[in-house]
Amino acid sequence: MTVGAPIGVFDSGVGGLTVLKALVAQLPRERFVYLGDTARLPYGTKSPETVVRYALQAADALAGYGVKCLVLACNTASAVGLTAVSERIRDVPVIGVVEPGAQAACLASRSGHIAVIATEGTVRGGAYQDAIVRRRSDARVSAVPAPLFVALAEEGLCHGPIAESVARHYLEPVFDSHADASRPDTLVLGCTHFPMLADAIRIVAGPQVRIVDSAETTARCVRLTLEAENLLSEGGEGSLRLLATDAADRFARIGGRFLERPIRPHEVELIDL
Amino acid sequence: MTVGAPIGVFDSGVGGLTVLKALVAQLPRERFVYLGDTARLPYGTKSPETVVRYALQAADALAGYGVKCLVLACNTASAVGLTAVSERIRDVPVIGVVEPGAQAACLASRSGHIAVIATEGTVRGGAYQDAIVRRRSDARVSAVPAPLFVALAEEGLCHGPIAESVARHYLEPVFDSHADASRPDTLVLGCTHFPMLADAIRIVAGPQVRIVDSAETTARCVRLTLEAENLLSEGGEGSLRLLATDAADRFARIGGRFLERPIRPHEVELIDL
Repeated sequence: MTVGAPIGVFDSGVGGLTVLKALVAQLPRERFVYLGDTARLPYGTKSPETVVRYALQAADALAGYGVKCLVLACNTASAVGLTAVSERIRDVPVIGVVEPGAQAACLASRSGHIAVIATEGTVRGGAYQDAIVRRRSDARVSAVPAPLFVALAEEGLCHGPIAESVARHYLEPVFDSHADASRPDTLVLGCTHFPMLADAIRIVAGPQVRIVDSAETTARCVRLTLEAENLLSEGGEGSLRLLATDAADRFARIGGRFLERPIRPHEVELIDL
Repeated sequence: MTVGAPIGVFDSGVGGLTVLKALVAQLPRERFVYLGDTARLPYGTKSPETVVRYALQAADALAGYGVKCLVLACNTASAVGLTAVSERIRDVPVIGVVEPGAQAACLASRSGHIAVIATEGTVRGGAYQDAIVRRRSDARVSAVPAPLFVALAEEGLCHGPIAESVARHYLEPVFDSHADASRPDTLVLGCTHFPMLADAIRIVAGPQVRIVDSAETTARCVRLTLEAENLLSEGGEGSLRLLATDAADRFARIGGRFLERPIRPHEVELIDL
């Protein structure tokens, strides 16, 4: 594997662009190939078997670009598919977003009571719960599926009364059902769409709750892994190639908000998986 | 084609069960085979080419069950795929939900100003707009994508403040930007999920607006077509076979609300497309 090879980043759609943004910020000299499986999104409502199958196809496609590292920037794919993908793509490090998110939550929490909001598939699979308890045996995890947040983020309804009332719908049962001393003190945004709604979430959760999103910690994990394997690009220019399996115009329009820079439709290459 | 053959009903997921419910009510002696493409839903955000490809695969699968009639109970698939599916499945009638919905709207509207809410794909494709204007050249159509309604219906959040504030978000710009005399007097629910939210939609649109959903009119269209072709089952028992491409348990759990009767997970057969 060469230092000059690109880093592959995979997500079911545009949500993983929040992770890509953090990666580009921490690793500005790297080449990135981002693949969004927009023809088959969302993964969060699909069965584990289907998600694993799709994740393996995406991993094979990115391996075909000669990547030196593969990031599963999709919580659902990380939660159910990381092992299968790591076994398939043996010659490069494969990094998901669940383990870094769980690690950040365990460091952030004082009380050990950690809330996780994610897609149905991620919550049902229990990967966050397992990853947190493995690191902190005293931890108590309250995990809640919050699928409407995905639709709100894609629709750009990230602020205002609708976002806040949906945040209340999901979070009040978690935070208000506990006496002050036993409320969660940390909230993991266990879906790459959710950082878009962080303001509304913060208003409902309250200022004393620490909000953890996996993007920053995953980017740090990728950097440390590349350093450890002597694969960090030091003199490169940095570049970004965007691939999608469908609807380049929608990817560009919605993805631009997630990446926080405009994406032109012709920048997005369509591929088949 | 035999009278005793089943009627095939296809949707991207569970939304088409609102159409199936109307079909079963009007045609209680028929056998139905319903296919929900839950592995690849939603169709509303996908490109026309992809939706057509998926619709053709689903039509081929249902043709394999020897159906005597094929209902595209998905607005997006009807809007972009009806012609392609009709050309592929030439020996049985193929009926979509857009034409019956447009017909009902043209009959219901006095002023000719008709509002349509649907998925992004359906609105962008312009099929409702075309079908309405073809029937009523004086018609004026205000079409609005309302994708959050899909997520709300799947989540079971069909009543209450969140549903109403989302309805206000989509409908107020359509209804309140016009002086009374030029407001739309008819609203087409151009997605099979939306009848689940009819109460919230009605509160926002106001009591004077006629709400048209395609389910009833499509069922009537299917009955008339079978009568005309002498394919109506008169002595049968009536039965229902449910097929899905993924996640039988989720199909059962959410689909039961749409069909208004419980569905047990083992009633749902998984097939590959």
